[in-house]
Amino acid sequence: MTIAPVGFLDQVPALVEPRIRELLGRLDPRNQRVTAYHMGYCEADGSPSAAGGKGIRPALALLSARAAGHPPERGVAAAAAVELAHNFSLLHDDVMDQDTVRRHRPTAWAVFGVPAAILAGDALMLLARDVLSGDTRPGTVRAARRLDADVHRLIAGQVADLEFERRDDVTLAECLAMSADKTAALMSCACALGALLCDAPAAVTEGLTRLGTHLGMSFQLVDDELGVWGEPARTGKPVGSDLRSRKKSVPVVHALTSGTAAGEALRELYASSGDLHDADLRTATGLLEEAGSRDWVRQEADRHLRHALAELDALGLPADVHDDLADLARLVTGRHH
Amino acid sequence: MTIAPVGFLDQVPALVEPRIRELLGRLDPRNQRVTAYHMGYCEADGSPSAAGGKGIRPALALLSARAAGHPPERGVAAAAAVELAHNFSLLHDDVMDQDTVRRHRPTAWAVFGVPAAILAGDALMLLARDVLSGDTRPGTVRAARRLDADVHRLIAGQVADLEFERRDDVTLAECLAMSADKTAALMSCACALGALLCDAPAAVTEGLTRLGTHLGMSFQLVDDELGVWGEPARTGKPVGSDLRSRKKSVPVVHALTSGTAAGEALRELYASSGDLHDADLRTATGLLEEAGSRDWVRQEADRHLRHALAELDALGLPADVHDDLADLARLVTGRHH
Repeated sequence: MTIAPVGFLDQVPALVEPRIRELLGRLDPRNQRVTAYHMGYCEADGSPSAAGGKGIRPALALLSARAAGHPPERGVAAAAAVELAHNFSLLHDDVMDQDTVRRHRPTAWAVFGVPAAILAGDALMLLARDVLSGDTRPGTVRAARRLDADVHRLIAGQVADLEFERRDDVTLAECLAMSADKTAALMSCACALGALLCDAPAAVTEGLTRLGTHLGMSFQLVDDELGVWGEPARTGKPVGSDLRSRKKSVPVVHALTSGTAAGEALRELYASSGDLHDADLRTATGLLEEAGSRDWVRQEADRHLRHALAELDALGLPADVHDDLADLARLVTGRHH
Repeated sequence: MTIAPVGFLDQVPALVEPRIRELLGRLDPRNQRVTAYHMGYCEADGSPSAAGGKGIRPALALLSARAAGHPPERGVAAAAAVELAHNFSLLHDDVMDQDTVRRHRPTAWAVFGVPAAILAGDALMLLARDVLSGDTRPGTVRAARRLDADVHRLIAGQVADLEFERRDDVTLAECLAMSADKTAALMSCACALGALLCDAPAAVTEGLTRLGTHLGMSFQLVDDELGVWGEPARTGKPVGSDLRSRKKSVPVVHALTSGTAAGEALRELYASSGDLHDADLRTATGLLEEAGSRDWVRQEADRHLRHALAELDALGLPADVHDDLADLARLVTGRHH
């Protein structure tokens, strides 16, 4: 019997949270509070909370261990590592973007200040690597190297994203490469890390890596679409926040490089000085639609999801883990209806 | 013949810089620029520079390998790792403290912006761990674990330092524990890391650890003294910067907890709202002297240096490495006249 996707996601906290809480428990008590708040385990005053993220990456890491023929428990270290690495990047991202809301709550820096949020991110990054270090078994060494490489890519993607804000000649290829680094690398890492930890054959870990890359690209494209057209109730972020901060996300760069009149009008709007108000955001949204950018982004998201599912099929996994991975892939790309 | 201390420090860049430059070369080109600027290898426009730090920690790491009976070359990975970890913390520290000047130059965030400096720090921290990861020889594993633990202590010390700014009941013991974490841990790490990498006996690595802890405490106490009484030409920082930002450094906490009238007057000055101006800084400096805090800090710095040198003697090292370590210890604590 296939476990429903929500069913598998529901199992993830019970498997992974205790490990992450144990790791946070190693930190200075002051840093425990900030990191636990960010993770959604507690409120700012320390009272318990259940405001955590969806747990997509840890779920993928557990399924990755299952794909290698092991029980999900064997992937817990991988799941904790990717979740901590992901949250390290969110903590620093929110500082860098000056975002005040995440998952419907004030961001950590908005509550505890910028320095505390920077240090909390630093600590999560160290913990992410702690999980896989100090163990010299071949699988753990392979997993640790992979995590290191993909966190470097994550940072390179953030550096590129930042630079794009100051440039007006960003190509679509550059923008997609940035998304591959910023988002797809860690998601691909999650898809492979459990299997790497179990020292699975290269054919399995490489197939999972390709699956994860396509899934990560599809996820980022959907996220970029939601960054323009998403409902705040669903995204947990203010409406049009990507446009308001003049982000060069994929739909925006698609429009800017589309050679259309709508794209040129958007370029002028982005080049204007001063804040973009609600009317400007509505104009920008309309221009993106006129330039065909929403359709293009949706098609690309679908194409990457199809490739991800094809890679999954090619792995020839047992039906239960195949179906759980397929369901999760459709869920995280908003294609589960 | 004993190599003069400046002579040994002079050898450090030739041994360590190529390794660090090679590591920085793995980063995204945009991040290479920011990190190389911060390290003093280039100017903001990319032109070459020689504005680096004194290289105390890498020098200690190389001497640590020599203390274990190996040539300094065997300590290069340890030296690169501690230097990168140290500079990760400086990059983030400057953002958190909003310091605009380091080593007589604008800080990285002041030149490239806060987000770029945060990401540059993140990248250096990853590189610091890369140097010692992926190698399963026992010495490398021991060294990697030690670095991980001490970088955690460094962050815990920064978290404590930050919290102290908002508290008015910080005890001298808490303040010294914070200094032990924030500064002495990584310096002690530098003193032991080369020997750990060479898989030296515990008696050697533990002796070097104790030596480094005392040296680190002495160094921080001297630094705290310079933070109040130092000349900008020597420190590379504006005069009285620690007082201006109302830092709870050791001399300040000593005065505040001294039970003297001068200490109470300083408490009132720190509790006042608004900026502290030059006249306030002169008043604060005078109050610290009146409370006996400058004398106490100097005596403590001397006491820790004596303990460090006693630990060095107890190691029974060959004369050349003993003398180089002793000379460097006196140099970094300003006691080399």
